[in-house]
Amino acid sequence: MSKVSPRTLSGFMELPPRQQMKLERMMEVLRRSYATYGFTPLDTPVIESAQVLLAKGGGETEKQIYRIPREGGDLALRFDLTVPLAKYVAAHYAELSFPFRRYQIGKVYRGERAQRGRFREFYQADIDVIGDGKLDILNEAEIPAIIYNTFTALGLRRFKIKVNNRKLLNGFYAMNGMAEKAGEIMRAVDKLDKIGPEKLKQLLIDEVKMLPCKAENVLDFMAIQGTVPEVLERLTNFRGMDAAFDQGLDELIAVTRYLKDFGVPEENFAVDLTIARGLDYYTGTVYETEMTDYPEIGSVCSGGRYDNLAEYYTDRQLPGVGISIGLTRLFYVLNEQGLLSDELVDAPCDALVIPMTEDLGFAVSAATALRGAGVRTQLYAEKKKFKAKLGYADKLGVPFVVLVGEDEIREGVLSVKDMAAGEQKKLSPQEAAAFIKAAVDAKNSGPVIKA
Amino acid sequence: MSKVSPRTLSGFMELPPRQQMKLERMMEVLRRSYATYGFTPLDTPVIESAQVLLAKGGGETEKQIYRIPREGGDLALRFDLTVPLAKYVAAHYAELSFPFRRYQIGKVYRGERAQRGRFREFYQADIDVIGDGKLDILNEAEIPAIIYNTFTALGLRRFKIKVNNRKLLNGFYAMNGMAEKAGEIMRAVDKLDKIGPEKLKQLLIDEVKMLPCKAENVLDFMAIQGTVPEVLERLTNFRGMDAAFDQGLDELIAVTRYLKDFGVPEENFAVDLTIARGLDYYTGTVYETEMTDYPEIGSVCSGGRYDNLAEYYTDRQLPGVGISIGLTRLFYVLNEQGLLSDELVDAPCDALVIPMTEDLGFAVSAATALRGAGVRTQLYAEKKKFKAKLGYADKLGVPFVVLVGEDEIREGVLSVKDMAAGEQKKLSPQEAAAFIKAAVDAKNSGPVIKA
Repeated sequence: MSKVSPRTLSGFMELPPRQQMKLERMMEVLRRSYATYGFTPLDTPVIESAQVLLAKGGGETEKQIYRIPREGGDLALRFDLTVPLAKYVAAHYAELSFPFRRYQIGKVYRGERAQRGRFREFYQADIDVIGDGKLDILNEAEIPAIIYNTFTALGLRRFKIKVNNRKLLNGFYAMNGMAEKAGEIMRAVDKLDKIGPEKLKQLLIDEVKMLPCKAENVLDFMAIQGTVPEVLERLTNFRGMDAAFDQGLDELIAVTRYLKDFGVPEENFAVDLTIARGLDYYTGTVYETEMTDYPEIGSVCSGGRYDNLAEYYTDRQLPGVGISIGLTRLFYVLNEQGLLSDELVDAPCDALVIPMTEDLGFAVSAATALRGAGVRTQLYAEKKKFKAKLGYADKLGVPFVVLVGEDEIREGVLSVKDMAAGEQKKLSPQEAAAFIKAAVDAKNSGPVIKA
Repeated sequence: MSKVSPRTLSGFMELPPRQQMKLERMMEVLRRSYATYGFTPLDTPVIESAQVLLAKGGGETEKQIYRIPREGGDLALRFDLTVPLAKYVAAHYAELSFPFRRYQIGKVYRGERAQRGRFREFYQADIDVIGDGKLDILNEAEIPAIIYNTFTALGLRRFKIKVNNRKLLNGFYAMNGMAEKAGEIMRAVDKLDKIGPEKLKQLLIDEVKMLPCKAENVLDFMAIQGTVPEVLERLTNFRGMDAAFDQGLDELIAVTRYLKDFGVPEENFAVDLTIARGLDYYTGTVYETEMTDYPEIGSVCSGGRYDNLAEYYTDRQLPGVGISIGLTRLFYVLNEQGLLSDELVDAPCDALVIPMTEDLGFAVSAATALRGAGVRTQLYAEKKKFKAKLGYADKLGVPFVVLVGEDEIREGVLSVKDMAAGEQKKLSPQEAAAFIKAAVDAKNSGPVIKA
């Protein structure tokens, strides 16, 4: 029979088992962390009507979309989790209670040009809080705490949550008579990190067509740095010149006021006036998260406040705030950098039970007892040489092998071999279960990301 | 602005939050149960090359597939998890250790005619054990234990795992000179439950064109029932007439031999000679699982032994055994029948912290403390009347409301209100966390499905 080559499409991540296990652990941490902050899990279809998905229309999105032709209206695969959320909230408005807090960890699809580290199918892990007409600023203030606790739970230590406010930026540009150029300026300032202040100034003069003095104003503003109180104090000097600026500053003060009560350490947080987030639907607080030792990776968790989640579907004003982790890309980068812990058990099982007699009754009972005690257990009954069986356990990274021979059956015990230590001891099935469980729990107590 | 109607496609399940929470719990039980038996989680792309996905080709599958046209070869959405597994094993053969045990819980897509309770996007929850060339029969013997423990963990009590063997059936038909009609007969026998033995006999005579005496032989064989030893004893009478039958009987004996050691109670298990599973790639043991009080639902967990997982991709012989739960349909049916427990907390949070003062510092600290102790906590800072705030908690099904007013701040305590009991008491943040955690753990200790 002629064979079809079993290939996986380019740009689609398909992991070996031990790596998949690490990704699953990261997802589990995200689920638990998001749930701790009172977000409910949501699951929306991967396929939507193209008309619904592209209600906003146009741009890069439309070109990258995976489309399924259908008479009476094409279908399409979701390209983010925000548009399906907007649809969901608009469609289920009457059944929901607001603020509506949901998390969603799901695959999204973008037919981008394939390149190393870029994926066409990738997980996003989003949270959003949606208000009905209004949404208290405390919801924005809470976001840094969620980011902090999520990344800390993953094991990351050296990262910084950067916060800014779009009203503050727009107000600043307005008070400098540059309101209509705000978007262009923000895009230019986004390059500050890469090109430095001198080149940025030239860019603002040459391409954004700003007067040199105004370009300098922008650079001076972006140079405002320091602790949160320091930055806020310097911003206070601009008070009274523009209403939007003042409101933005008030929001920034409110967002930073309870940082300590939220448990966010100073060293993991900064007000950073250079960040703006490209998306034009953010209207207030914006967030980015940078891994201190890997700034080149860019932001690993971003988002912001928006005023109108579902304007393409409903007349209702639905303001919200949300953040998104590009999980597949984050996993890829962590893996590439060797930052994923190998301490945690990534084998399919904690104990491999190897029967060494014809009658398997005692071995099966032992496996049942181990499983009942919460030990992930595999029974290995294949006809192989003893060395091959141990080699199998070794290759999978199984921490414990449980040998069941005639001696063990007669004595009613199990020989438990610690594969890392090479030690072996005889224990009753109950003792073996407790021993293995405790050892595996200890191994798994550390975080997914190496500190 | 003209609005796009925020509709969800027909045949795509999109749940309200409290129902979604129940589905998430079911998935969590499946993940844990499958992991307990030493299966590793796998995640393959939703999109594959149509050529790869349809390597087997033809039939209903091809008509139902969601296709994404592409120059140089169409893409398509997976319609099950078995074909992607076959591709995965063939593609990653060199990296894998055999037996390879994986579970996958993922969405699959079939463009079926939409009807009530039928879905075009649905979750399958599969496990498979794949051998390299050979696979010990113990892997088949273990499957009923996995089914038993999984459904028991979900909370189901009244169900029966039915087992049969395709070699036994084929052997029986061969010894009756009906080998070439085996497929047709199996399809007819599949209707026995619905039409009864008399009509089946007529069907076998009229449509399958069998001699009346042979049709009676089939009916007599299918009427073999009883305990496992009883059925096996009656089957032993047919020994020595057909090699395939004898092998099938040996397998059935091996598969049922350790049931007790595997912890499968007699009342949840039966050898049922009438089941065959439609798929022609099953070659040995086959499994079905019936909810005793809802036989009309059909099998909720099915599968079997196959000899050649990836024959369209590789010359390697990869035998295996697997089962699949149609999770979306199972959830739909359980929900429709009112069988999902309302005892478990399905709110987004366990505690809703309601600050009642201008300064939110203490309320925020309290929320942080609760979260640190593992209590899923939401801070509610919206400007609403007190009654509306309690109404919000009530509508979401939040079990505890934590009130933080001036008295509480002065005393350094929290007023914890049990929403179900209506009782309220003052506790330190630490006491409150422990109290709420214990109460919520107790509420969540029961199973998802009502016993």
